[in-house]
Amino acid sequence: MSDNNEHLHAMRHSLAHITAGAVKKLWPAAKFGVGPVVENGFYYDIDLGEQKISESDFKKIEKEMRAIINQSQDFDRFEMPVDEAIEWAKVNGQPYKEELLNDLKRSGTTIAKDLDADELGLAAEGDAAVEKVSFYKNGEFVDLCRGPHVANTKEVGAFKLLRVAGAYWRGNEKNAQMQRLYGVAFETQEELDQYLERLEQAKLRDHRKLGKELDLYTVSPLVGAGLPLFTPRGTVLRDIVAQYSNQLRQRAGFQKVWTPHITKKDLYEASGHWAKFGDELFLVTSQETSDEFALKPMNCPHHTQIYASSPRSYKDMPVRFLETTTDYRDEKTGELGGLNRVRSLTQDDSHVFARPDQIEQEINNLLAAARELYGSIGMKLRVRLSYRDEGEGYLGELALWESAQAQLKQAVIANELEYFEQEGEAAFYGPKIDFMATDAIGREHQVATVQLDFVQPQRFGLSYTDSEGNNAQPVMIHCALLGSIERFLSVFIEHTAGWFPFWAAPEQIRILTINDTVLGYVDEIKAVLSETVLMAPVRYNELRFTVDDRNESLGKKIREATTAKIPVQLIIGGKDLEAREVSVRTQQGEEKVAFDSLVEYLKGL
Amino acid sequence: MSDNNEHLHAMRHSLAHITAGAVKKLWPAAKFGVGPVVENGFYYDIDLGEQKISESDFKKIEKEMRAIINQSQDFDRFEMPVDEAIEWAKVNGQPYKEELLNDLKRSGTTIAKDLDADELGLAAEGDAAVEKVSFYKNGEFVDLCRGPHVANTKEVGAFKLLRVAGAYWRGNEKNAQMQRLYGVAFETQEELDQYLERLEQAKLRDHRKLGKELDLYTVSPLVGAGLPLFTPRGTVLRDIVAQYSNQLRQRAGFQKVWTPHITKKDLYEASGHWAKFGDELFLVTSQETSDEFALKPMNCPHHTQIYASSPRSYKDMPVRFLETTTDYRDEKTGELGGLNRVRSLTQDDSHVFARPDQIEQEINNLLAAARELYGSIGMKLRVRLSYRDEGEGYLGELALWESAQAQLKQAVIANELEYFEQEGEAAFYGPKIDFMATDAIGREHQVATVQLDFVQPQRFGLSYTDSEGNNAQPVMIHCALLGSIERFLSVFIEHTAGWFPFWAAPEQIRILTINDTVLGYVDEIKAVLSETVLMAPVRYNELRFTVDDRNESLGKKIREATTAKIPVQLIIGGKDLEAREVSVRTQQGEEKVAFDSLVEYLKGL
Repeated sequence: MSDNNEHLHAMRHSLAHITAGAVKKLWPAAKFGVGPVVENGFYYDIDLGEQKISESDFKKIEKEMRAIINQSQDFDRFEMPVDEAIEWAKVNGQPYKEELLNDLKRSGTTIAKDLDADELGLAAEGDAAVEKVSFYKNGEFVDLCRGPHVANTKEVGAFKLLRVAGAYWRGNEKNAQMQRLYGVAFETQEELDQYLERLEQAKLRDHRKLGKELDLYTVSPLVGAGLPLFTPRGTVLRDIVAQYSNQLRQRAGFQKVWTPHITKKDLYEASGHWAKFGDELFLVTSQETSDEFALKPMNCPHHTQIYASSPRSYKDMPVRFLETTTDYRDEKTGELGGLNRVRSLTQDDSHVFARPDQIEQEINNLLAAARELYGSIGMKLRVRLSYRDEGEGYLGELALWESAQAQLKQAVIANELEYFEQEGEAAFYGPKIDFMATDAIGREHQVATVQLDFVQPQRFGLSYTDSEGNNAQPVMIHCALLGSIERFLSVFIEHTAGWFPFWAAPEQIRILTINDTVLGYVDEIKAVLSETVLMAPVRYNELRFTVDDRNESLGKKIREATTAKIPVQLIIGGKDLEAREVSVRTQQGEEKVAFDSLVEYLKGL
Repeated sequence: MSDNNEHLHAMRHSLAHITAGAVKKLWPAAKFGVGPVVENGFYYDIDLGEQKISESDFKKIEKEMRAIINQSQDFDRFEMPVDEAIEWAKVNGQPYKEELLNDLKRSGTTIAKDLDADELGLAAEGDAAVEKVSFYKNGEFVDLCRGPHVANTKEVGAFKLLRVAGAYWRGNEKNAQMQRLYGVAFETQEELDQYLERLEQAKLRDHRKLGKELDLYTVSPLVGAGLPLFTPRGTVLRDIVAQYSNQLRQRAGFQKVWTPHITKKDLYEASGHWAKFGDELFLVTSQETSDEFALKPMNCPHHTQIYASSPRSYKDMPVRFLETTTDYRDEKTGELGGLNRVRSLTQDDSHVFARPDQIEQEINNLLAAARELYGSIGMKLRVRLSYRDEGEGYLGELALWESAQAQLKQAVIANELEYFEQEGEAAFYGPKIDFMATDAIGREHQVATVQLDFVQPQRFGLSYTDSEGNNAQPVMIHCALLGSIERFLSVFIEHTAGWFPFWAAPEQIRILTINDTVLGYVDEIKAVLSETVLMAPVRYNELRFTVDDRNESLGKKIREATTAKIPVQLIIGGKDLEAREVSVRTQQGEEKVAFDSLVEYLKGL
């Protein structure tokens, strides 16, 4: 943690105390749980008994907080033997603190099991039972706390209470329900304002809201939660990004294959997934036979069966399969919202079966594809290289691991990608590369993954004949560039706020007529647009356009097209007809383009 | 049945008697079941006890048959009271005939339930108990039989015993297992030879055999029967025919949508499918929740949910959805072979939601698409128009039915399709059009269907606002042009015998080098092929080619390319390089094409 982060942490932690102090002033009987620092701010868990804090109380709580700050109270640290502290909690009517102290007295670890001792602000360290605990006092407010804090309440920076939500004590729904009061805090008011602005932005960009407004997908209670149905507009988006992802890999020699969505469980028993994830699968029962199936949660085992269906020689390698197909995962209904967590996940999946000496070139191809894809939608990528550590349990020869890890890194460097390395983060079956993409409002999303696999080729007995005529075992490389299309779309929608790049927009162009005298000219324009096919970044991308020739005002037509976030509006009036021009309206403004240059203009967008 | 067919029927029936007579001569203890006429021939069910007839016996049986024929025996009819006939069966050791006669004595219908009395050759008619039965005698052989027969064994035409298979007495596996001896028979030797030739052709074209030889798909026991996995070559075929089918409809304004493969059973309860087909579905169980799902066996209910997700006005109609998606049907494992009967059926499905006055135009579009598709693969189409009859149980207003049926017929006539009409063949929810396509060896396959539906829009409460502002109910038109892609491919493979048309072939072109001096020239050719995209009949169809520059003889390279049924082989030698030509080898022969004209030549194929 940098110095700056340590200071910010202390500020936020101090604000948690100030919040609790203000609440105690307003509701003297308040009982407190824990009050840790979280991303962008802090919270405190509070129990007011029958009473409840609501957002309408935020003003008066913040007023009390400001009063405490203005009193320039020092944060004073002092220590107390545990038994004395327990007595203090009893006397002060703080049963939750009392419970924590009793646990702490028995062993520091008991608490660590369900709550982070550091976040608790307790003095406990290590596994041993604790004898003394530390407190912090500012003004009248005293709290059991490990610290650190800022020296004085004056130093807490800019803050705002954000929301209040129910929270079970120690996260266990059998315990008492408390209220968790969240605040955000930054060093400066400017930073806080920026953050709040970003939050507002994120709300406006919420893909569930835009998905409805832009008519991209729908959810039917008859079909079920987490099983979105895509309308024509949403299906254009699905198809165009999948096509892009596929074309980037077909360029590198990948070939499409097709596999069914169900399989006998035997396949996942052979792959080892059944033992590991068997209870997370959707089970499929045949009523006509005694066959037991599962819906596939991943495609690699299927692809091994296609690889295994023909004899392979070292000259045939690598063998590269590509399949955009829907996998099913049995997510709990409560966790399903919008497109970022669904039960039907369409993967733009691919598997390379390679010789060990081919890993670097293959990774190179995949990284170049990922860089191009995310670059073209304006998202910055950085990657994490996950290696094995000295621990046990990794399968595959050490020499193969070392060679593979070096090849991964080499490919990342060759592609000039920002990267960091983490030992011990590899899967037991191989090292991997994770891609993180930053969106337009600065949020980082984990997107594509490239995963090496030394184990499945072995479990399925895959082989090729090497140049000496011996049986050799290929390495598998799993890669999905988009990850799941549904989740990618949730990121893409929020990143663009629904203003999709021209090549991807479901409706790219809307022709808006000023009056009916131009209809013949509009037919000419339509004829030209119908013949236009974009070739970059996605090949064979036929223009998608509509005509709004209703008898409505131009203002209304423009408003509606802008609400629908149509990237190109072509406004056609009598003067345009005379001058053989069109008025092109985009987010960048309005300009006149000659009819004869229109296609070139559009191809250049 | 025409006169000619009646005569052929009598010939085949007489041959069944002659077969039985020959068998009785060779195995005097033979017990006989029934011996009816079937398509292209006849069979007789025979019980030899411990002994079994095998194909190696066919020669001697046929020899005995020819002996009977050469004796010019007359077929003589005579009658006998039933009780006397039963006695005859007992005396002659024919327990199966005895059983039939006893049943017949009680009631003619008993037999008709599991065996067609006509096929049995019994004299029984109607439901009443029978008093007399007829026999036919030729030479020493006497058989209970209704007739008719030819007058003399001389008149039976050309025949051949084809195969022998196990068959349970009366089709019930609890009964004795007999042997069913099949023969084929035609009026002339020429017709017989043609039939046998076609049979041989069909064997060579068997898509299961070609699917393996041409590496189109594979079946894995770990995945399961009826769940084929498609290799890169097979996937090219799947994709190109689906793309064709989709492009034909997109031209007519269809838009792609996407729906998941599972749904809560609520959807099929609402549609009415659950009550009707609920026990034929694959059931899906969530282990995380109590949700009950089914794998979708069809897509119409899903598409109604997308239609229902937005308000629709008469101006928005028709709304046309298109989705190529995989449905699952719980077929019994024993019925699964190759691609024509699978558990995973990928439908090139579409649904139009139309105003009643739009039916004809929409049907027109679909018929034009079907005609173009089947025309371009050289299959002749004829259609069956299935109408309602006077019966009960049809849903929807009579006026709507009559208008819809007239519109269907009008569209069929406008498309100049050969058609026939059948009353009483409509589904209860609407009239339909079935397409039959004839393949290269004269077999007719049922392929596409266009089905009107007045019921689902009602069950799902679908509506649009009509021009007067009232709620109106759309008509649904279901249509899949290919039907299921898997089944279509089984027909396509057998129709073409694996020699796919140039535009569809997984590997369209193979360049065969005569020696290494031409490699630079081959690179030039490759560069030109890489840039070539076919636009008809499927748009955006990039050329698929490979190079065989191994150090092998040209003869071997040609043999391998021909075995792989590559439609275009480009043979490149030193002379071709000098003359800036290529030698193009197709099924039509070999010719020289100038390098500069190669692309035009290929586009013209």
